[in-house]
Amino acid sequence: MPKLALESIEQTSRTGYPPPYAEVMAKRHYRRLAPASGLTDFGVSHVVLEPGGISSQRHWHEGEDEFVVMIQGEAVLVEDEGETLLRAGDCAAFPKGVPNGHHLINRSDAPCVFFAFGKASTTDCHYPDVDMHLDGATQRFVRKDGSDF
Amino acid sequence: MPKLALESIEQTSRTGYPPPYAEVMAKRHYRRLAPASGLTDFGVSHVVLEPGGISSQRHWHEGEDEFVVMIQGEAVLVEDEGETLLRAGDCAAFPKGVPNGHHLINRSDAPCVFFAFGKASTTDCHYPDVDMHLDGATQRFVRKDGSDF
Repeated sequence: MPKLALESIEQTSRTGYPPPYAEVMAKRHYRRLAPASGLTDFGVSHVVLEPGGISSQRHWHEGEDEFVVMIQGEAVLVEDEGETLLRAGDCAAFPKGVPNGHHLINRSDAPCVFFAFGKASTTDCHYPDVDMHLDGATQRFVRKDGSDF
Repeated sequence: MPKLALESIEQTSRTGYPPPYAEVMAKRHYRRLAPASGLTDFGVSHVVLEPGGISSQRHWHEGEDEFVVMIQGEAVLVEDEGETLLRAGDCAAFPKGVPNGHHLINRSDAPCVFFAFGKASTTDCHYPDVDMHLDGATQRFVRKDGSDF
Protein backbone atom coordinates (compact mmCIF):
# COMPACT_ATOMS: atom_id res chain seq x y z
CA MET A 1 0.00 0.00 0.00
CA PRO A 2 1.78 3.17 -1.14
CA LYS A 3 -0.15 5.42 1.29
CA LEU A 4 1.72 5.35 4.57
CA ALA A 5 -0.11 4.54 7.79
CA LEU A 6 1.87 7.03 9.83
CA GLU A 7 0.44 5.88 13.16
CA SER A 8 1.84 2.40 12.50
CA ILE A 9 5.41 3.69 12.08
CA GLU A 10 7.49 4.03 15.21
CA GLN A 11 7.73 7.54 16.58
CA THR A 12 10.84 8.43 18.54
CA SER A 13 12.59 11.36 20.19
CA ARG A 14 16.06 9.82 19.99
CA THR A 15 19.04 12.01 19.22
CA GLY A 16 22.71 11.29 18.68
CA TYR A 17 23.65 14.62 20.28
CA PRO A 18 25.79 14.32 23.40
CA PRO A 19 24.85 16.11 26.62
CA PRO A 20 24.18 18.95 27.16
CA TYR A 21 22.83 19.35 23.62
CA ALA A 22 20.51 16.36 23.66
CA GLU A 23 18.03 17.42 26.35
CA VAL A 24 16.42 20.18 24.34
CA MET A 25 15.44 17.62 21.67
CA ALA A 26 12.87 15.91 23.91
CA LYS A 27 10.01 17.91 22.38
CA ARG A 28 10.81 16.68 18.85
CA HIS A 29 9.04 13.46 17.88
CA TYR A 30 9.83 11.93 14.50
CA ARG A 31 9.17 8.96 12.26
CA ARG A 32 11.71 7.73 9.72
CA LEU A 33 9.57 7.05 6.66
CA ALA A 34 12.17 5.88 4.14
CA PRO A 35 13.14 2.61 5.86
CA ALA A 36 9.47 2.02 6.66
CA SER A 37 8.48 2.33 3.01
CA GLY A 38 11.48 0.97 1.12
CA LEU A 39 12.92 4.25 -0.14
CA THR A 40 16.69 4.53 -0.46
CA ASP A 41 17.30 7.52 -2.76
CA PHE A 42 16.62 10.01 0.03
CA GLY A 43 15.44 10.12 3.61
CA VAL A 44 12.05 11.39 4.76
CA SER A 45 11.08 12.24 8.32
CA HIS A 46 7.62 13.09 9.64
CA VAL A 47 8.29 15.44 12.54
CA VAL A 48 6.07 16.76 15.33
CA LEU A 49 7.41 19.64 17.42
CA GLU A 50 5.70 20.35 20.70
CA PRO A 51 5.52 23.99 21.81
CA GLY A 52 9.07 24.97 22.75
CA GLY A 53 10.60 22.20 20.67
CA ILE A 54 13.36 22.60 18.09
CA SER A 55 13.97 20.53 14.95
CA SER A 56 17.71 20.21 15.67
CA GLN A 57 20.56 22.31 16.89
CA ARG A 58 21.12 25.03 14.30
CA HIS A 59 23.36 23.43 11.66
CA TRP A 60 24.42 23.15 8.03
CA HIS A 61 25.68 20.14 6.09
CA GLU A 62 28.75 20.17 3.85
CA GLY A 63 27.43 17.44 1.58
CA GLU A 64 23.67 16.90 1.90
CA ASP A 65 20.75 18.95 0.63
CA GLU A 66 17.75 19.38 2.91
CA PHE A 67 14.14 20.43 2.31
CA VAL A 68 11.24 20.95 4.71
CA VAL A 69 7.49 21.33 4.14
CA MET A 70 5.18 22.58 6.89
CA ILE A 71 1.97 20.58 7.16
CA GLN A 72 0.21 21.80 10.27
CA GLY A 73 0.69 24.60 12.75
CA GLU A 74 3.63 26.94 12.48
CA ALA A 75 7.32 27.17 13.28
CA VAL A 76 9.99 29.83 13.12
CA LEU A 77 12.88 29.16 10.77
CA VAL A 78 16.06 30.58 12.25
CA GLU A 79 19.11 31.14 10.06
CA ASP A 80 21.95 33.62 9.69
CA GLU A 81 19.77 36.22 8.02
CA GLY A 82 17.11 36.17 10.73
CA GLU A 83 13.80 34.53 11.44
CA THR A 84 10.97 33.58 9.12
CA LEU A 85 7.59 32.15 10.04
CA LEU A 86 6.64 28.93 8.25
CA ARG A 87 2.94 28.05 8.09
CA ALA A 88 1.15 25.06 6.57
CA GLY A 89 2.04 24.85 2.89
CA ASP A 90 5.28 26.81 3.27
CA CYS A 91 8.59 25.18 2.41
CA ALA A 92 12.29 25.88 2.70
CA ALA A 93 15.40 24.54 0.96
CA PHE A 94 18.91 24.20 2.36
CA PRO A 95 21.45 23.41 -0.34
CA LYS A 96 24.53 21.48 0.72
CA GLY A 97 27.68 23.45 1.41
CA VAL A 98 25.96 26.77 2.09
CA PRO A 99 27.33 27.84 5.49
CA ASN A 100 24.02 29.15 6.83
CA GLY A 101 23.01 27.30 9.99
CA HIS A 102 19.27 26.66 10.22
CA HIS A 103 16.65 25.03 12.39
CA LEU A 104 12.97 25.33 13.23
CA ILE A 105 11.56 26.42 16.60
CA ASN A 106 7.95 25.99 17.63
CA ARG A 107 7.15 29.21 19.50
CA SER A 108 3.40 28.69 19.21
CA ASP A 109 1.14 27.12 21.82
CA ALA A 110 0.19 24.13 19.66
CA PRO A 111 2.16 21.27 18.13
CA CYS A 112 3.37 21.72 14.56
CA VAL A 113 4.01 19.06 11.94
CA PHE A 114 6.46 19.07 9.04
CA PHE A 115 8.19 16.68 6.66
CA ALA A 116 11.98 16.85 6.26
CA PHE A 117 13.89 15.41 3.30
CA GLY A 118 17.55 14.66 2.78
CA LYS A 119 20.12 11.95 2.25
CA ALA A 120 21.72 10.36 5.27
CA SER A 121 24.58 12.54 6.48
CA THR A 122 28.03 11.28 5.49
CA THR A 123 29.85 14.60 5.55
CA ASP A 124 30.78 17.13 8.22
CA CYS A 125 27.94 19.03 9.82
CA HIS A 126 28.55 22.42 11.41
CA TYR A 127 26.73 23.84 14.46
CA PRO A 128 27.36 27.59 14.72
CA ASP A 129 25.67 28.12 18.11
CA VAL A 130 27.14 25.28 20.19
CA ASP A 131 30.52 23.68 20.80
CA MET A 132 29.70 20.58 18.76
CA HIS A 133 30.68 19.24 15.34
CA LEU A 134 29.72 16.13 13.40
CA ASP A 135 32.78 14.50 11.91
CA GLY A 136 31.64 13.08 8.58
CA ALA A 137 34.35 10.45 8.32
CA THR A 138 33.65 8.87 11.70
CA GLN A 139 30.01 9.98 12.10
CA ARG A 140 30.83 11.00 15.65
CA PHE A 141 29.97 14.18 17.48
CA VAL A 142 33.05 15.97 18.80
CA ARG A 143 33.82 19.41 20.18
CA LYS A 144 34.87 22.12 17.76
CA ASP A 145 38.53 21.51 18.68
CA GLY A 146 38.08 17.86 17.68
CA SER A 147 38.11 16.50 21.23
CA ASP A 148 35.62 13.94 22.46
CA PHE A 149 32.66 14.69 24.69
CA MET B 1 16.48 33.12 1.98
CA PRO B 2 15.79 29.45 2.64
CA LYS B 3 11.99 29.89 2.67
CA LEU B 4 10.83 29.62 -0.92
CA ALA B 5 8.64 32.34 -2.41
CA LEU B 6 6.56 29.89 -4.42
CA GLU B 7 4.70 32.59 -6.34
CA SER B 8 8.03 33.85 -7.72
CA ILE B 9 8.93 30.46 -9.19
CA GLU B 10 7.67 29.72 -12.69
CA GLN B 11 4.57 27.55 -12.82
CA THR B 12 4.08 25.43 -15.91
CA SER B 13 1.83 22.73 -17.35
CA ARG B 14 4.47 21.40 -19.76
CA THR B 15 4.73 17.68 -20.38
CA GLY B 16 7.08 15.54 -22.43
CA TYR B 17 4.28 13.12 -23.23
CA PRO B 18 3.47 12.77 -26.92
CA PRO B 19 -0.09 13.13 -28.21
CA PRO B 20 -2.62 11.79 -27.37
CA TYR B 21 -1.29 11.39 -23.81
CA ALA B 22 -0.29 15.01 -23.32
CA GLU B 23 -3.67 16.72 -23.49
CA VAL B 24 -4.99 15.35 -20.21
CA MET B 25 -2.04 16.97 -18.39
CA ALA B 26 -3.35 20.51 -18.97
CA LYS B 27 -4.96 20.64 -15.53
CA ARG B 28 -1.65 19.92 -13.76
CA HIS B 29 0.36 23.01 -12.87
CA TYR B 30 3.78 22.57 -11.31
CA ARG B 31 6.86 24.37 -10.10
CA ARG B 32 10.30 22.78 -10.12
CA LEU B 33 11.73 23.79 -6.76
CA ALA B 34 15.14 22.11 -6.82
CA PRO B 35 16.70 24.19 -9.62
CA ALA B 36 15.05 27.29 -8.14
CA SER B 37 16.66 26.70 -4.76
CA GLY B 38 20.01 25.08 -5.59
CA LEU B 39 19.17 21.49 -4.58
CA THR B 40 20.74 18.68 -6.57
CA ASP B 41 20.40 15.57 -4.38
CA PHE B 42 16.73 15.12 -5.30
CA GLY B 43 13.99 16.88 -7.21
CA VAL B 44 11.02 18.62 -5.61
CA SER B 45 7.87 19.71 -7.41
CA HIS B 46 5.03 21.84 -6.03
CA VAL B 47 1.97 20.63 -7.92
CA VAL B 48 -1.56 22.02 -8.23
CA LEU B 49 -4.18 19.77 -9.78
CA GLU B 50 -7.39 21.37 -10.94
CA PRO B 51 -10.58 19.33 -10.59
CA GLY B 52 -10.32 16.55 -13.17
CA GLY B 53 -6.55 16.80 -13.39
CA ILE B 54 -4.07 13.93 -13.03
CA SER B 55 -0.53 14.04 -11.69
CA SER B 56 0.83 11.94 -14.57
CA GLN B 57 -0.11 8.96 -16.64
CA ARG B 58 -0.13 5.99 -14.28
CA HIS B 59 3.50 4.80 -14.16
CA TRP B 60 6.34 3.24 -12.19
CA HIS B 61 10.08 3.88 -12.39
CA GLU B 62 12.70 1.16 -12.60
CA GLY B 63 15.36 3.24 -10.90
CA GLU B 64 13.94 6.23 -9.00
CA ASP B 65 12.12 6.42 -5.69
CA GLU B 66 9.17 8.80 -5.43
CA PHE B 67 7.33 10.34 -2.49
CA VAL B 68 4.28 12.61 -2.34
CA VAL B 69 2.80 14.71 0.49
CA MET B 70 -0.69 16.21 0.21
CA ILE B 71 -0.87 19.81 1.41
CA GLN B 72 -4.33 21.06 0.52
CA GLY B 73 -7.53 19.53 -0.78
CA GLU B 74 -7.68 15.87 -1.70
CA ALA B 75 -6.77 13.47 -4.49
CA VAL B 76 -7.34 9.82 -5.24
CA LEU B 77 -4.23 7.66 -5.44
CA VAL B 78 -4.75 4.99 -8.09
CA GLU B 79 -2.50 1.93 -8.16
CA ASP B 80 -2.74 -1.79 -8.90
CA GLU B 81 -4.40 -2.57 -5.59
CA GLY B 82 -7.14 0.01 -5.99
CA GLU B 83 -7.87 3.57 -4.98
CA THR B 84 -6.99 5.46 -1.80
CA LEU B 85 -8.03 8.95 -0.83
CA LEU B 86 -5.18 11.29 0.15
CA ARG B 87 -6.04 14.31 2.27
CA ALA B 88 -3.87 17.13 3.63
CA GLY B 89 -1.11 15.61 5.76
CA ASP B 90 -1.29 12.20 4.05
CA CYS B 91 1.74 10.86 2.21
CA ALA B 92 2.65 7.96 -0.07
CA ALA B 93 5.91 6.29 -1.07
CA PHE B 94 6.76 4.56 -4.35
CA PRO B 95 10.01 2.63 -4.12
CA LYS B 96 11.96 2.18 -7.35
CA GLY B 97 11.54 -1.07 -9.20
CA VAL B 98 8.17 -1.98 -7.70
CA PRO B 99 5.95 -2.65 -10.73
CA ASN B 100 2.88 -0.94 -9.33
CA GLY B 101 1.76 1.90 -11.59
CA HIS B 102 0.48 4.92 -9.68
CA HIS B 103 -0.85 8.42 -10.14
CA LEU B 104 -3.12 10.95 -8.44
CA ILE B 105 -6.49 12.11 -9.75
CA ASN B 106 -8.35 15.13 -8.44
CA ARG B 107 -11.99 14.01 -8.41
CA SER B 108 -13.05 16.79 -6.04
CA ASP B 109 -14.54 20.12 -7.04
CA ALA B 110 -11.61 22.18 -5.71
CA PRO B 111 -7.92 22.37 -6.61
CA CYS B 112 -5.55 20.23 -4.59
CA VAL B 113 -1.89 20.85 -3.81
CA PHE B 114 0.90 18.38 -3.16
CA PHE B 115 4.68 18.16 -3.14
CA ALA B 116 6.39 15.37 -5.12
CA PHE B 117 9.97 14.22 -4.50
CA GLY B 118 12.34 12.12 -6.57
CA LYS B 119 15.57 12.10 -8.51
CA ALA B 120 15.47 12.98 -12.20
CA SER B 121 14.49 9.91 -14.19
CA THR B 122 17.39 8.18 -15.92
CA THR B 123 15.88 4.70 -16.13
CA ASP B 124 12.95 3.12 -17.94
CA CYS B 125 9.48 4.20 -16.85
CA HIS B 126 6.50 1.94 -17.42
CA TYR B 127 2.93 3.07 -18.15
CA PRO B 128 0.52 0.17 -17.65
CA ASP B 129 -2.63 1.90 -18.97
CA VAL B 130 -1.37 3.47 -22.21
CA ASP B 131 0.76 2.46 -25.18
CA MET B 132 3.73 4.53 -24.08
CA HIS B 133 7.14 3.81 -22.53
CA LEU B 134 10.01 6.01 -21.41
CA ASP B 135 13.31 4.63 -22.63
CA GLY B 136 15.81 5.41 -19.89
CA ALA B 137 18.88 5.33 -22.11
CA THR B 138 17.58 7.85 -24.62
CA GLN B 139 15.05 9.66 -22.39
CA ARG B 140 12.56 9.42 -25.24
CA PHE B 141 8.94 8.36 -25.13
CA VAL B 142 8.24 5.44 -27.47
CA ARG B 143 5.40 2.99 -27.96
CA LYS B 144 5.48 -0.25 -26.03
CA ASP B 145 6.89 -2.04 -29.10
CA GLY B 146 9.75 0.47 -29.16
CA SER B 147 8.53 2.39 -32.19
CA ASP B 148 8.44 6.17 -32.32
CA PHE B 149 5.34 8.28 -31.93
